[in-house]
Amino acid sequence: MQIAIIGLGNAGLPLAAVVADSGIDVVGVDINEERCNRINRGDNPIPEEVGLDDLIKIHGGKRLVATAKFEDAKGCKTFIVIVPVFVDAGYNPDFSIMKSALLSLGKILKKGDLVVLETTFPPGTTEEMAESLLTQSSGLSKSDFFLAYSPERIMTGYSISRLREFPKVIGGRDEESGIVAYQAYKKFINNLHLVSSARVAEMIKVMEGCYRDVNIALANELFKICQDLGVDFMEARDKANHQFCHIHLPSTGVGGHCIPVYPWFLIKEMEKREHFSNCRLLRTSREVNDEMILYWAEKILLQCLKINKPLSSIKICIKGITFRAGVKEFYHSRNLALARMLVEKGLDAYVWDPLMSEQDVQNKGLRYLEPGKADLLFDPFNLEFEYSN
Amino acid sequence: MQIAIIGLGNAGLPLAAVVADSGIDVVGVDINEERCNRINRGDNPIPEEVGLDDLIKIHGGKRLVATAKFEDAKGCKTFIVIVPVFVDAGYNPDFSIMKSALLSLGKILKKGDLVVLETTFPPGTTEEMAESLLTQSSGLSKSDFFLAYSPERIMTGYSISRLREFPKVIGGRDEESGIVAYQAYKKFINNLHLVSSARVAEMIKVMEGCYRDVNIALANELFKICQDLGVDFMEARDKANHQFCHIHLPSTGVGGHCIPVYPWFLIKEMEKREHFSNCRLLRTSREVNDEMILYWAEKILLQCLKINKPLSSIKICIKGITFRAGVKEFYHSRNLALARMLVEKGLDAYVWDPLMSEQDVQNKGLRYLEPGKADLLFDPFNLEFEYSN
Repeated sequence: MQIAIIGLGNAGLPLAAVVADSGIDVVGVDINEERCNRINRGDNPIPEEVGLDDLIKIHGGKRLVATAKFEDAKGCKTFIVIVPVFVDAGYNPDFSIMKSALLSLGKILKKGDLVVLETTFPPGTTEEMAESLLTQSSGLSKSDFFLAYSPERIMTGYSISRLREFPKVIGGRDEESGIVAYQAYKKFINNLHLVSSARVAEMIKVMEGCYRDVNIALANELFKICQDLGVDFMEARDKANHQFCHIHLPSTGVGGHCIPVYPWFLIKEMEKREHFSNCRLLRTSREVNDEMILYWAEKILLQCLKINKPLSSIKICIKGITFRAGVKEFYHSRNLALARMLVEKGLDAYVWDPLMSEQDVQNKGLRYLEPGKADLLFDPFNLEFEYSN
Repeated sequence: MQIAIIGLGNAGLPLAAVVADSGIDVVGVDINEERCNRINRGDNPIPEEVGLDDLIKIHGGKRLVATAKFEDAKGCKTFIVIVPVFVDAGYNPDFSIMKSALLSLGKILKKGDLVVLETTFPPGTTEEMAESLLTQSSGLSKSDFFLAYSPERIMTGYSISRLREFPKVIGGRDEESGIVAYQAYKKFINNLHLVSSARVAEMIKVMEGCYRDVNIALANELFKICQDLGVDFMEARDKANHQFCHIHLPSTGVGGHCIPVYPWFLIKEMEKREHFSNCRLLRTSREVNDEMILYWAEKILLQCLKINKPLSSIKICIKGITFRAGVKEFYHSRNLALARMLVEKGLDAYVWDPLMSEQDVQNKGLRYLEPGKADLLFDPFNLEFEYSN
C-alpha cells in the first residue's frame, strides 16, 4: 500500500511521518524542492516538533519519499491533501494554493482512487470546490472516485502525539466515500471517528477554532474589566475555573494560521448571505482580540511615567514578536503588529526575540536591541514589564 | 455557637439547613412570615431541592429557627446575608432588598461581630455599599466589626451537594476579616478557599456567570450558522468537544436570576465609567441570547408551512414557559417571553406547562391548551416541534 500526501508543511509532514511509521509507503509531494531534498536526507525541517526528528531520520528518503513532482505519486490509490488555506487582506478565504494542488492532483487521479482533504476551510468546500476541481481536471465523473474530509487537529510542537492519541474525525462527500476513507485512515490513526458527512467534519474543526477565539476574547475582556476594578485577574480566574468553567488566559491577541483565521470562514459566509446577525459574537471576538494591541500600547506608554527621561528618549523593547512563544512564526502575529505600531506612533521602540538574530529582526523592518540596553521591556508572552534603569 | 442567616430564599434556606446539619444553631431571618412558619413546622418550601426535605424535617423549628424579626438574631456573633439583588428595567443593579436587610442588620450589630455576604453583586459592593450601610445603621466604626464576602455557588436542585462538595471561596474587606470569616465558615464548609479580598471573591462569581452566558451565546450563534450551512449542530458539537473544547448547548436564550443578570453588573459598571469597549463581548452575548426568541418565533412561523390550514387558525402551543425545565420560576424566562411575543404578533398561541395549572397559565396573561388540541407544538427545552394533525 502506498499513500500520497500533498503538502509537507507543518501539518503535512508530521502526518506523512506518522503514516510512514505505521508501515505504509508514503510519497510526499511539496512544491519546495529544497525541503524535499532535506526530508529525503533524513533531516527534519521542523525541529520544534517533538518526536519528528527521529521519524524523519528513520523514514526520510526510505519509506517516506518527498518529491516536487505530482507524477511521482501516480501509482498511489489514496491521496491526502494538506496544503494551506489562509484569508486574504479582506478576510475572505484564499484558496489559491489549494486550487492549484487539486488541479495538479486531478491530472493523476484514476477511477476508484480516494482523495481525503485535511486542510481547515469553510464547511462545504470538499463537496463543492474540491469535487468540482477534481472532476474538471481529471475528466472523471464524481462517482468515479471517493472523496472525504478529515481535519488535521495538530498543534505545532505536539503534532505527533496529537496524531497518535487525539480523537480524529472523518466524513465522506457521500456515505460510501466516508466508509472507504474511514477504512484507509484506520490503518494509521487509532482514535478515529466516522461522522455523517464531509460538511460536518469541516464544521467540527472550524467550531473548535471559534470556541478558542471567543474564549480568548472573553478572557481579554474580563482581564481589562479586572484591571479597571482593581481585581487580580489571575487570582480570580484560578478560583473561578472548575469542571464547568474554563476561563482562558489573557494575551496580546491571537496569532497564527488557525484560531484568528477560522472564525472568518463562518463570518464571511454569513455576511455573503446577508445574515449579519448570525455572526455578531464571532466578529466581536475577532475585533476584541485584534484590538488588544491598542490596549497594550497604552499600557506601555503609561509605564513610561515611571521612567525619569523624556518620552522620546525612552528605549522600549518588545521581548518577542513571534505569534507564540517558542515557535518562529509570524502569521498574524499581534506581537509583531504591536512592535510596528509603537514605531509608527513615533516611540523609540525596538525588538529582541529569543528565536531571532539581529538580521532576522531587521528583515521585519524593525530595530534590534539587547534587552539590557532598554529602559522599558515588555514581555508579550507573560504580559510583564521590566525596567532596566 | 449560633449563626444568623438573613434571607431564607432558594439560596439562603439550603445554606441554613446545611449549617444547622453541621451542629450549629441557626437563626434564619426572612420577611415572609408564612415561609418561616412552614420551615419551623419542618415543611420544606423548596421541594425541588434534592435532600432539603430531610434536613428541614430534622432541623426546622429546632436547630434551625426561622423568624421574621431581626431582634431574634441579636444574640448571634456571625451574620450571613443572602438576599436577592436583581437588575431593574434599565439593567442596573437593584439593591433595594439588600439595602433594607443591611440597615436592619446594622441595628442589632455589635462590636466584634462578623458579617458575611453571599449574594452575587458587582465587585466592590461589600467594601463600599455594605460597609457604609452597616456603619451608618449600627453607629459602629468600620474597625469594630469584621466584614467578608463568600459567593453562593448553588444551583436550584443541586444546592445541598454543591454546598458540601463544590469549592467555595471567601475573601475579607481586610486581611483580618478574611481570616476570621474563613475560620467561621470552615466549621460548615469543607471545600473552602480564602482569597485575597472580598472584591476578588465578588469577581470570581460574576466571571463564572459571564463565562456561561458568553458560551451559551456562542452555542446559539453556531447553532444558527449550522442551520444555515446544513450541518447537524448536535453531531458537530459532540465531536468538536474534548478536554480543551467545551461548546455549550443551544437554547431559546438564558433565563433565571443568575446568568442573564451577572454580565449586566460588569456591563453597567463599565458603561458608567465610559469604558464601552471593555464590555463589547459581554453585551453582544446578552443580546444574542435575548434575541434567540426572535429566531424561534420565525422557526415556529415557518413550521406552519407544513400545516394545511389558514395561518390564523393554526393553534400553536408552547410546551413550557418556566425559564428552565423542572423549576417553576419565571424570572427573565425567554420561553414566557416567546409565548407572549407570538400572541402579540397576532398568532393563535397557547401554553401548556407540566408545572402549571390552567389558572397558573392564565395568571401569566396567557391561554392554556392541552397539547393534544394544538396543531403545532414547540418544546423550548428540547428545541423540538410536534404536529398533532
